[in-house]
Amino acid sequence: MRAYNFCAGPAALPTAVLEKAQAEMLDWHGKGLSIMEMSHRSKDYVAVAEKAEADLRKLMNIPENYKVLFLQGGASLQFSAIPLNLLGKNDKADYIHTGIWSEKALKEAQRYGDIHVVNAGIQIDGKHAISAQSEWDLSADAAYVHYADNETIGGLQFASIPETDKPLVCDYSSSILSAPLDVSKFGLIYAGAQKNIGPAGLTLVIIREDLLDQAKPEIPSILKYSDQAKNGSMVNTPSTYAWYLSGLVFEWLLENGGVDAMHQTNLEKAKLLYGYIDSSDFYANPIVEANRSIMNVPFTLANADLEKQFLQEAEANHLLNLAGHRSVGGMRASIYNAVPLEGVQALVNFMDDFAKRNG
Amino acid sequence: MRAYNFCAGPAALPTAVLEKAQAEMLDWHGKGLSIMEMSHRSKDYVAVAEKAEADLRKLMNIPENYKVLFLQGGASLQFSAIPLNLLGKNDKADYIHTGIWSEKALKEAQRYGDIHVVNAGIQIDGKHAISAQSEWDLSADAAYVHYADNETIGGLQFASIPETDKPLVCDYSSSILSAPLDVSKFGLIYAGAQKNIGPAGLTLVIIREDLLDQAKPEIPSILKYSDQAKNGSMVNTPSTYAWYLSGLVFEWLLENGGVDAMHQTNLEKAKLLYGYIDSSDFYANPIVEANRSIMNVPFTLANADLEKQFLQEAEANHLLNLAGHRSVGGMRASIYNAVPLEGVQALVNFMDDFAKRNG
Repeated sequence: MRAYNFCAGPAALPTAVLEKAQAEMLDWHGKGLSIMEMSHRSKDYVAVAEKAEADLRKLMNIPENYKVLFLQGGASLQFSAIPLNLLGKNDKADYIHTGIWSEKALKEAQRYGDIHVVNAGIQIDGKHAISAQSEWDLSADAAYVHYADNETIGGLQFASIPETDKPLVCDYSSSILSAPLDVSKFGLIYAGAQKNIGPAGLTLVIIREDLLDQAKPEIPSILKYSDQAKNGSMVNTPSTYAWYLSGLVFEWLLENGGVDAMHQTNLEKAKLLYGYIDSSDFYANPIVEANRSIMNVPFTLANADLEKQFLQEAEANHLLNLAGHRSVGGMRASIYNAVPLEGVQALVNFMDDFAKRNG
Repeated sequence: MRAYNFCAGPAALPTAVLEKAQAEMLDWHGKGLSIMEMSHRSKDYVAVAEKAEADLRKLMNIPENYKVLFLQGGASLQFSAIPLNLLGKNDKADYIHTGIWSEKALKEAQRYGDIHVVNAGIQIDGKHAISAQSEWDLSADAAYVHYADNETIGGLQFASIPETDKPLVCDYSSSILSAPLDVSKFGLIYAGAQKNIGPAGLTLVIIREDLLDQAKPEIPSILKYSDQAKNGSMVNTPSTYAWYLSGLVFEWLLENGGVDAMHQTNLEKAKLLYGYIDSSDFYANPIVEANRSIMNVPFTLANADLEKQFLQEAEANHLLNLAGHRSVGGMRASIYNAVPLEGVQALVNFMDDFAKRNG
């Protein structure tokens, strides 16, 4: 039996996707071999890879002057690849700091150039929030402005896309495909696959073509966006099975109404869970309403001594992976696209029952 | 029906491994979720990851003073990571050049230091060979000596391990686990998984501990061997599903007699195929006997116009992916561990029939 999986990443995948992958695991489309046993340059595999890109372009309405790259190494390797590719001659960029992931990105960038840090994480009435852009001192000569749309650990999300005339570079690892997005506002969007796209081992980079050719001389060759763009992300062997599975997720999204439909369900899920937390004296969420993530919902129990019991009982009720990140503790429910509304309802029912028994 | 798959990589995997992965795809060990939907830091996943490493250590008899890293990016990212980690203060290394892959490695290394190239690819009576070490002018002050044990494209393999007092660094992508190996002779062994280990998207690095702490300052952080070693290859999210599948392959190898047994079968397979080619006027292999790869067997047809027909008829006979690499043409049968002796026998039978009909 499949449980409801609230893991922050590697995260839940749609059951229908896993069933399809399972059915074709040993013999893909009657070809006598698994898709993971095929050359990445074979006609069959290239068709799978290209369809995945075409479906993603459809889902996100990606303009033609953007390249889509299917890379390895996670968002963390992009923390290095982005400054190495984009800092350019000024060697300067602005990084908006809102939590643990945007901090990791900026610390790595500081190894390669002059990084101006904008501390945008603030407290309003004891709750975490992101400051208004009017309070940021952005640089006049930054090569780009970097931020993380959704802080997976903190559960803190931007309410809107920052405005700037510089290329905007954004880590969308935990919120890509969760809501409609105007890609044309960005210079580069990147995302580790293991939250809302597919399995770990794949990283998406969506980059505006005019930004491709500026890499620093010391960049490891396969990190060069220009080379990967020219070679269809196949400068070397890509993570073929993860790419294929992500393609199945994109098909599943299209069959289920695309990003708009997913967004509506995500809003319902978030409303249900935050609504219950807000109505309860037993649970609390530490984020101001405007910056609450619709993907990662951290919450605390009135009595922290009950956390272990909460997690054990949740697991017995087939509600998995609700522990908060090891760096912050507490609880966290990640409610990505693959977690259905029924899963969130089951979680709320359990939370309510637990509170009544222990409150 | 499963065909015999002679792809050079991503390559055939053992059918028993794919069957096991298929069976547990939606619900791993009754836990209610797929192994690919689990946090890499969960107790269950860490146990899987650690068992894979322990099994590999058993299979390869890896000494305790070596670390085993499960990384992303392919051998090609290691082409950058190796000089960035190991060139040290001398900034100098020797690279033995025997073919396309060792050339790619040395070209990338040249971007980071003073690389002395030893051209060891020679011709003997019109056949490709590797020159004797006595003819190499190795440097006195190299930080390490790099070579590729087996040139996957050329089908050219070292007959023995070079002797040197410098740390020996070897690309074992297409020959790891195909024969017993004295790991203690090496400073570092690396291998892309997609040939003899598992699916694409995972790269093994086996490194002697005293070499860990010498990275250049400009190295992207997640490429630092020291950090990955300290963090159990989990500085960031690893390629969890590929790691799990590789673990299943290691289990399968142990259940089937380990590397010694595999080596005996590999020798039989190679003897059968090379023996047939040598006995035929219709087929030819361009490598001297001492340097013939036991994993990748390139061969040509007496009449190159018949290549397309050969490939089509082979495919109709469930013998897949026999085309040579696009850079060299001709044919190539990759006969990795997962290709059984019966597969090679079926290939030889087909080749013989084809030659009789077209010779």
